[in-house]
Amino acid sequence: MKTYIGVDLGGTNVRVAKVDEEGNILQIVKEPTEVAQGTEHVINKIISMIEKIDGYADCEGIGMGVPGPVNTIEGKMVLATNLPGFEGFPIAKTISDHFHMPTFVDNDVNVAGMGEAMLGAGKGLPVVYYVTISTGIGGALVVNQRVVAGKNGHAGEVANIIIDRNREKVNYLNVGAVENEASGTAITRKGKAIFGDDKIRHAGDVFDLAREGNEKALKLCDEVAYDLAVMFSAIAHVVDPYVFVVGGGVMKGKDVFFDKMEAYYRTMIHKGMQTVEFKEAQLEEPGIVGAAMLPRSYVDKENI
Amino acid sequence: MKTYIGVDLGGTNVRVAKVDEEGNILQIVKEPTEVAQGTEHVINKIISMIEKIDGYADCEGIGMGVPGPVNTIEGKMVLATNLPGFEGFPIAKTISDHFHMPTFVDNDVNVAGMGEAMLGAGKGLPVVYYVTISTGIGGALVVNQRVVAGKNGHAGEVANIIIDRNREKVNYLNVGAVENEASGTAITRKGKAIFGDDKIRHAGDVFDLAREGNEKALKLCDEVAYDLAVMFSAIAHVVDPYVFVVGGGVMKGKDVFFDKMEAYYRTMIHKGMQTVEFKEAQLEEPGIVGAAMLPRSYVDKENI
Repeated sequence: MKTYIGVDLGGTNVRVAKVDEEGNILQIVKEPTEVAQGTEHVINKIISMIEKIDGYADCEGIGMGVPGPVNTIEGKMVLATNLPGFEGFPIAKTISDHFHMPTFVDNDVNVAGMGEAMLGAGKGLPVVYYVTISTGIGGALVVNQRVVAGKNGHAGEVANIIIDRNREKVNYLNVGAVENEASGTAITRKGKAIFGDDKIRHAGDVFDLAREGNEKALKLCDEVAYDLAVMFSAIAHVVDPYVFVVGGGVMKGKDVFFDKMEAYYRTMIHKGMQTVEFKEAQLEEPGIVGAAMLPRSYVDKENI
Repeated sequence: MKTYIGVDLGGTNVRVAKVDEEGNILQIVKEPTEVAQGTEHVINKIISMIEKIDGYADCEGIGMGVPGPVNTIEGKMVLATNLPGFEGFPIAKTISDHFHMPTFVDNDVNVAGMGEAMLGAGKGLPVVYYVTISTGIGGALVVNQRVVAGKNGHAGEVANIIIDRNREKVNYLNVGAVENEASGTAITRKGKAIFGDDKIRHAGDVFDLAREGNEKALKLCDEVAYDLAVMFSAIAHVVDPYVFVVGGGVMKGKDVFFDKMEAYYRTMIHKGMQTVEFKEAQLEEPGIVGAAMLPRSYVDKENI
């Protein structure tokens, strides 16, 4: 069975794994990123971590997920807020020059989306749209098991979609951007405004209140459901995916908002689009398994 | 040079043409559709029209554009409001069985988008989003010179994207759907409400008043520009295209609304996405040339 190296490069930790074509993690190593010590230090660390993997040289290629938009053709980050120094740095070329193996880089959400499209909840479907609802909201478009990253690596930046222009300005995102109205951070912020800082530490506390039947919490969940539905309907009208694969920590509250969301969504799309399904993300380690699938997507397409 | 048969099947007329790989129309025939006489009549008509084309048997394949969403894998229309009887009819298979040539069907907007991506304003770019602003609003996603039609052929049904949920219900589309707020029909409706039925016959009359400096007309164009910008920004965050190719009759008024639209749009997208360009559609006959490019897209990909 073919194997691939997956690298999950985060602001805090780097993880490197050997993954087979069924998505099984055969070996994994983890170290702190230490980005403050410079890009060269981080790259050397990744190289030495890959060299710790048994039989790394027999893998088909290397895939890396990074936190931020990527120019996938050049293999460089376009914006690297959590990895200072990496903006414009030729990550793929540097790693590929060292190992003489095909090396690909994409952002962590795209990589997770591709993992889901190739091995998880969207397995084998021609058009998969992955959405993660967590602290923030991210998305990824995967067509024929290949990520469509877009010109600037910004495909899937659905956080900034305007779901209601009549809201308050929260931050640099658009007024009424879905991330400011329906992400984990937004649910926490709105929950605090209603119930106070002491009662709400995170979105889960709002969900718990809703589960207890608290009317204000139920109303907040209902509003979040509607806001998310507007976002999903916008995406659906742009690409009409075979499936929406939805992941992220906010899905821990799916029992209190997801059915409502889907019901609203179904009122916002054409009759002919009703067959599109929502599925929960399945992969336990989408970041690293998805990264490992990058070379499979780009080199081994006949393998799928 | 390779040649292809393009069929533009509309509710009123059918046009069949022989098109070369540079998009030149070498021969064209046109007849009334006569859809009231049944699907078999229309299909037989198309077959005999193709047989009128010199050297039709030497063409590489047949591509058809039809008015409505298509299941491109099955080659059938999903919805055929303007072609009663064609919903679910195996158009591609019937034509292909007769000629023993690869035959593909897609909706007319997707076909036009592919023409623009392959030969027109988006030529050679990896991700092209085509938008036509006419009586209605339609779109098409073209990735690597192939249309992404979606599960139900509804990719590109951007008309139904909600650009402001605080509007009035107009028709079966969503409240605040962009087509009801910024299409030619919408501009006409809003113009009539402001200036009266006698002054406004179509959107062009509103644009003329704006050109004369009429403040109410300028305000209406400004609102339309903003509404369109919200739609374009939603699309951009979903797919981050290399280019938006914009066509349709409303572009005759581009001098009074398009710069405003683009300026609003640029405030609604991330800094890293600013390189995306808007280009006006270039093909004179996108419907028929785009249709002819379907077999080229699906069969002759090495040819591109």
